[in-house]
Amino acid sequence: MAIEKEKKSKHIFKPKKIGILGGGQLARMMSLKTHELGLLPIIYSEKKDDPAALTTTFHFQGSSDAVTPLKNFLSQCDVVTFESEFLNGQLLAQLSQDTGTPIYPSPLLMEQLQDRATQKRLLHKFKIPTSQSMEVANLAELELAINVIGPKLVLKKRRFGYDGYGTFFIDANKDQKSHWKTYFENNVHGFIAEKFIPFKRELAILLARDLHGQVQTFPLVESKQTNARCDWVMGPIVHPRKKQLTQMLSQFVKKIDYVGVIAFELFDTGKELLINEIAPRVHNSGHYSQNALEYDQFQTHIMAISGFKLPQNQLFTKGFAMANLLGESNETPHWPQNLKGHLHWYEKSENRKSRKMGHINMLSASPKKALSLALKERKKVKL
Amino acid sequence: MAIEKEKKSKHIFKPKKIGILGGGQLARMMSLKTHELGLLPIIYSEKKDDPAALTTTFHFQGSSDAVTPLKNFLSQCDVVTFESEFLNGQLLAQLSQDTGTPIYPSPLLMEQLQDRATQKRLLHKFKIPTSQSMEVANLAELELAINVIGPKLVLKKRRFGYDGYGTFFIDANKDQKSHWKTYFENNVHGFIAEKFIPFKRELAILLARDLHGQVQTFPLVESKQTNARCDWVMGPIVHPRKKQLTQMLSQFVKKIDYVGVIAFELFDTGKELLINEIAPRVHNSGHYSQNALEYDQFQTHIMAISGFKLPQNQLFTKGFAMANLLGESNETPHWPQNLKGHLHWYEKSENRKSRKMGHINMLSASPKKALSLALKERKKVKL
Repeated sequence: MAIEKEKKSKHIFKPKKIGILGGGQLARMMSLKTHELGLLPIIYSEKKDDPAALTTTFHFQGSSDAVTPLKNFLSQCDVVTFESEFLNGQLLAQLSQDTGTPIYPSPLLMEQLQDRATQKRLLHKFKIPTSQSMEVANLAELELAINVIGPKLVLKKRRFGYDGYGTFFIDANKDQKSHWKTYFENNVHGFIAEKFIPFKRELAILLARDLHGQVQTFPLVESKQTNARCDWVMGPIVHPRKKQLTQMLSQFVKKIDYVGVIAFELFDTGKELLINEIAPRVHNSGHYSQNALEYDQFQTHIMAISGFKLPQNQLFTKGFAMANLLGESNETPHWPQNLKGHLHWYEKSENRKSRKMGHINMLSASPKKALSLALKERKKVKL
Repeated sequence: MAIEKEKKSKHIFKPKKIGILGGGQLARMMSLKTHELGLLPIIYSEKKDDPAALTTTFHFQGSSDAVTPLKNFLSQCDVVTFESEFLNGQLLAQLSQDTGTPIYPSPLLMEQLQDRATQKRLLHKFKIPTSQSMEVANLAELELAINVIGPKLVLKKRRFGYDGYGTFFIDANKDQKSHWKTYFENNVHGFIAEKFIPFKRELAILLARDLHGQVQTFPLVESKQTNARCDWVMGPIVHPRKKQLTQMLSQFVKKIDYVGVIAFELFDTGKELLINEIAPRVHNSGHYSQNALEYDQFQTHIMAISGFKLPQNQLFTKGFAMANLLGESNETPHWPQNLKGHLHWYEKSENRKSRKMGHINMLSASPKKALSLALKERKKVKL
């Protein structure tokens, strides 16, 4: 079937074909909401049986840096978005210009945020509270950072670190310093060294901004990382600084002219809220929204990038929780049938240790009650 | 990609591939929820660009009575369901037996319900209150029905009538009787003649029953037909007889061993609730559930037919409404972008007068408020 490109207005964009770069679970969940709105999702990914590719008849096969397939893909879409920030921003910006197909969020903004050093610079520029840090490319610079910031640091790869991959804890008072140099071997992009924050808990919050400039904020949630992977999320979290935080972040997304959903991960030190990381996309910490909010993060993102005015959203429950279903082996994944709550299963063909295979959302009378129920259900699952 | 059939337990079925007969909006919305649960929807329909076919990579092309394509389709699925009750029940029952693939709801039950005469007999058998009626095949039998039931009747085609097609109003005191005989020309299946019920309003309710035998009831709604098509729905409707009604209908679906979602349309005469029609499938009167309930009718149906225990459901709002977006012309359908509420658009390639092109769901503080908002939004749409 031929895909015809719709004529575009010079003003607000009226898309019909929504291109999604990536074939994983985030792309999949965006694709399902794209269908619901009556827009056509077109998936660009490496394999025809990727989780997102299964949800539509339109699939472009290619790697994320293959110029010609990418250009063909863009030329067939009315607007394009992505599920991962680790893409070539310069290339995408150029192809967007060449094809006339907008990409949201902006690929150049994505590129700034994919690099932890430039992300930190952006936070500092807009006076967003975050931990003290320095860019370090070698052992000498790490030792300088220890002198300046202190003995306890977190060393993070500037690029391609995610879910704790590429993150190392440094304690200059305890570590075998000889081990440090191994971090710098084979690393081309360098690191940032952040002051270690002894946080009370980790929080997260999503914001969304539409093409008309309106910003929407989502509930504040607590997120738990276990073995450097998102383990569970619960909310809504009541916090005396929430209003101040959302005002500051709303200003931030306006000033950087962001379009789409954006995720902020925070440290709650008990005294202050520090931004830990930003992801320019829909995010695991926002999966709860599929069942707890009137409009979930996936629908909100697709609406935001495709010209809708973001609607007023509402929370349906006094407590919600999300528990990730992570692979535990290489055995055939066993689809968990009779769980209570809301099963979201990504239909990945292969299981792997720690791989995100699905999640459970649970609603209840309080965040803790919802979490307790979600964890109880998760115990029934063997992956 | 090859589709491998999963080994089946003799007990409760653990499906992976959900076959859906039909390519329209009901199949489409079932398909999207099938994906969400991590099951694979396989669509059987006539065209590759049917609304449901766009939502999955697995499509079997064929007409609803093509034996070999149907058999191939069934043999690739773990369980099969349908979006229309106007199928060949005998054929499907035979193919289900031949392939070992269960079809829910039962095709033979579907066949009983697709014929208004056998549907009425079933209602009478289980003492479900409904209007008085007689089977009439010719003019002489119609005149007999007028003598027995009274001068005001509704003549309904036994088969293939839907949304008011094949329905004629008779008033023996006013009509030109010579016109009646035209109803019987070219009609092979005959009619039923029902006593005309001067109802106060039309109501509707969904029930669902899972493979474990548990029954779930949905909120009671008011539904408005305009020009013999579903125009809007609002709810929840508080009615003193709701409890009695749901108890009776729960018993009914148990006794007929029904599996899946079933829709009951009712006349509220002010004095009593009479069952007007039954549809053995997800139904337009239940679309509100996509945004007003924790589990919508599509997810509930897929869960019910695929071995899940139906979860406790909850209503998220004090008022909801659904307004259908019906075609008004043969012009290219214009996708309505900036509506408030929840747009569900079916992506049909062609527009036609009165064709269901999409719907809007709206939540608000009361049913009437939600309806008023939904109708206001609908006025913005030109199709």
